[in-house]
Amino acid sequence: MTENRLETTALHTDKYEFTMLDTAINADKAFHRAVFEVFTRSLPQGRKYGIVGGQQRLLEALSRFKFSKADISFLHRANFLSERTIGYLESFEFHGTITGLPEGSFYFGGTPILKIEGTFAECLIIETLVLSILNFDSALAAAGERMVRAANRRPIIEMGSRRIHEEAALAAARIGYIVGMASTSNLGAARIYNIPASGTAGHALVMAFENQIEAFHAQAMTLGASSTFLVDTYDQESGILDAIMACDGEPGAIRIDSGDLFEGATNARQLLDSKGAKSTRIIVTGDLDEFEIQRLRDAPIDGYGVGTRFVIGSGHPSANLVYKLSEIEVNGEMVGVSKASIGKETIPGSKKVTRHFDQDGRFIAESISPTAKESSQNQYFMASSAIDPYVTFIERGRISFGLSIEKIRSFHANQMKALERFVELND
Amino acid sequence: MTENRLETTALHTDKYEFTMLDTAINADKAFHRAVFEVFTRSLPQGRKYGIVGGQQRLLEALSRFKFSKADISFLHRANFLSERTIGYLESFEFHGTITGLPEGSFYFGGTPILKIEGTFAECLIIETLVLSILNFDSALAAAGERMVRAANRRPIIEMGSRRIHEEAALAAARIGYIVGMASTSNLGAARIYNIPASGTAGHALVMAFENQIEAFHAQAMTLGASSTFLVDTYDQESGILDAIMACDGEPGAIRIDSGDLFEGATNARQLLDSKGAKSTRIIVTGDLDEFEIQRLRDAPIDGYGVGTRFVIGSGHPSANLVYKLSEIEVNGEMVGVSKASIGKETIPGSKKVTRHFDQDGRFIAESISPTAKESSQNQYFMASSAIDPYVTFIERGRISFGLSIEKIRSFHANQMKALERFVELND
Repeated sequence: MTENRLETTALHTDKYEFTMLDTAINADKAFHRAVFEVFTRSLPQGRKYGIVGGQQRLLEALSRFKFSKADISFLHRANFLSERTIGYLESFEFHGTITGLPEGSFYFGGTPILKIEGTFAECLIIETLVLSILNFDSALAAAGERMVRAANRRPIIEMGSRRIHEEAALAAARIGYIVGMASTSNLGAARIYNIPASGTAGHALVMAFENQIEAFHAQAMTLGASSTFLVDTYDQESGILDAIMACDGEPGAIRIDSGDLFEGATNARQLLDSKGAKSTRIIVTGDLDEFEIQRLRDAPIDGYGVGTRFVIGSGHPSANLVYKLSEIEVNGEMVGVSKASIGKETIPGSKKVTRHFDQDGRFIAESISPTAKESSQNQYFMASSAIDPYVTFIERGRISFGLSIEKIRSFHANQMKALERFVELND
Repeated sequence: MTENRLETTALHTDKYEFTMLDTAINADKAFHRAVFEVFTRSLPQGRKYGIVGGQQRLLEALSRFKFSKADISFLHRANFLSERTIGYLESFEFHGTITGLPEGSFYFGGTPILKIEGTFAECLIIETLVLSILNFDSALAAAGERMVRAANRRPIIEMGSRRIHEEAALAAARIGYIVGMASTSNLGAARIYNIPASGTAGHALVMAFENQIEAFHAQAMTLGASSTFLVDTYDQESGILDAIMACDGEPGAIRIDSGDLFEGATNARQLLDSKGAKSTRIIVTGDLDEFEIQRLRDAPIDGYGVGTRFVIGSGHPSANLVYKLSEIEVNGEMVGVSKASIGKETIPGSKKVTRHFDQDGRFIAESISPTAKESSQNQYFMASSAIDPYVTFIERGRISFGLSIEKIRSFHANQMKALERFVELND
């Protein structure tokens, strides 16, 4: 059976990028310098900030943005490009410069998140890849951060793999960890991104045995009494009693996956305590999102598992980031350009972001100004420091920035700390 | 830079499947015969049927569900499985049997969509892969079919790649084509799935030139006057006039991507007609879903492009299919099992679907009965034929069913034809 997979990332491309390239090559526009910017026009309703994710994945994907023989032979077969354009693609490597906010940063509507500079040609054809990665990862980063915040330091296990495309599941697990989840259920993500994996048992195990106690005995024997027992296959009370009996004492944890979780956790805690299983932790799962986690804040819960609602971005599965030309070289000079399409207007020229912090490192405001001009001094900010938050990811084709996932995770945690008062003030 | 990719599909797995496997191996349960079923408890609100997608992708993915050296060495490192269990995985190949509805079929809440039979062990560990693929592809199949239906034979271009994970974008393009879209913007999908690709120009091309007419001249020169001109970069009227001038006559098509599309298309048609460009087609794009397409039904529109709303399943990005143990071997006999978790109850035993059609081949009803018993004869149906809709995808580990994408597409079209009266009656 044929393997329907691409060897490179070069065809994660919309056809119109190549037809535009073809047109630009013929019109001698392709190798003019250009600047594109990535931003969102507005945040989803009710959200005060977004979290950008995917930069590290993008760098890896761009390093594989080279056309294989099979890619090129497909382009020949497809027969819509000039030989000259195919020749350009055949030896293509991205030689441009990418700067922007580090992964895990917060952003607002209009914040320039990433800036791509190079020839018009090379910036043009990576548009789809850039947006696919940043839109998916940022949508989940924002949703995940909200869930982590709602969980108020109780650990969250990411377990949404089964609800999303199998490859997207790996990216979901990765970004979940970056925004502060404790672990993932996905072993592939654990392997390639080196993040902790969690999981013990589902209902199938309990149902595979003639009765629950036998299943729990088998689990305790193999995984230990300290593992997590899923107690709601039949009814929660018998589940808890069977788990205690199978462990001959205190199970490490129990998991509740159905019913009203507030009530379930409260009843479970009482029953566990009354049986002396005071150190048994209670984990709850089942369609949790930031609102439900918030509702459960006062329940005796020790950890959450999030699935569907996380991997679908808690109602916003795509971050709606766009990739727009902001400057192009005309007669040797860079000129700002913009479009005026109704509801989709853009601001001409490459922009510079400045972030203002008070003396305790708390974020106060963001200002955006044309690159050419000096940053406006707005005295209302009373900022003690003004920071350029950009880093250089790729400089003239060479990757110049890379962080371990742990570093990205702690960078994100610091961003959230800096943003705390801003979030409170805007609540 | 390390390539963060998996060589196999074997770790598209939740950790708990392997810990359950470990437990079952130790308890001598792993090699008992088992039956798992895939179904949804209920359809999203307002939907009368779902469309299942992904079976062909699943067969390909299962053929790669074999553990690589790197996978096994990760499992050793992760240090949570017995040597015996790792040994089992090291030589793992799926030898079970998978039967079910063909890709592109309709289904309802409770319809058994896929049946997986084999040892408890082998059925258990493919759960996440099965669900990831079917949940994503079916969510988009359902959304796409609704858009195709609303478009009422006007062609739809799928162009959502930039709004979803880059690999998921390929699956999106594929399933969009299966449910009747005319083409995709995604070249990778065009290459590996052999589906038509579409696309000509975005706003960046227009903005890269000093003025619009110059850009359109360049486009007409390279892509031909018969290509599609994007006319809303500045204002639609000047866009249309410039396109006509650049083509020295009738442009093949114009595209409108902003503003009220009903009004925009109506104005565009009048202007085009008044300038003699009566054969110029009008394509509209911009956050279209089935509701907006329906609203545009009486506008002078010749084709739609769908993006975001399609790839996020038009509000339902995951099909909520579940994978549940329904039978297991006990003392040599297959026994039906079920769970009683609140709101997540299942029905014990492997089930058989029968679909009833009238003499004109129109679908009337579906009945579901335990495999062992005879199908119930419900005389209210007045059906002239009762059909078993299942096919065998994999028989004892060997793939026994495979259709070209064109065949799947026409199978789906026939399913929709058979369902037409049922949809009307239930409207």
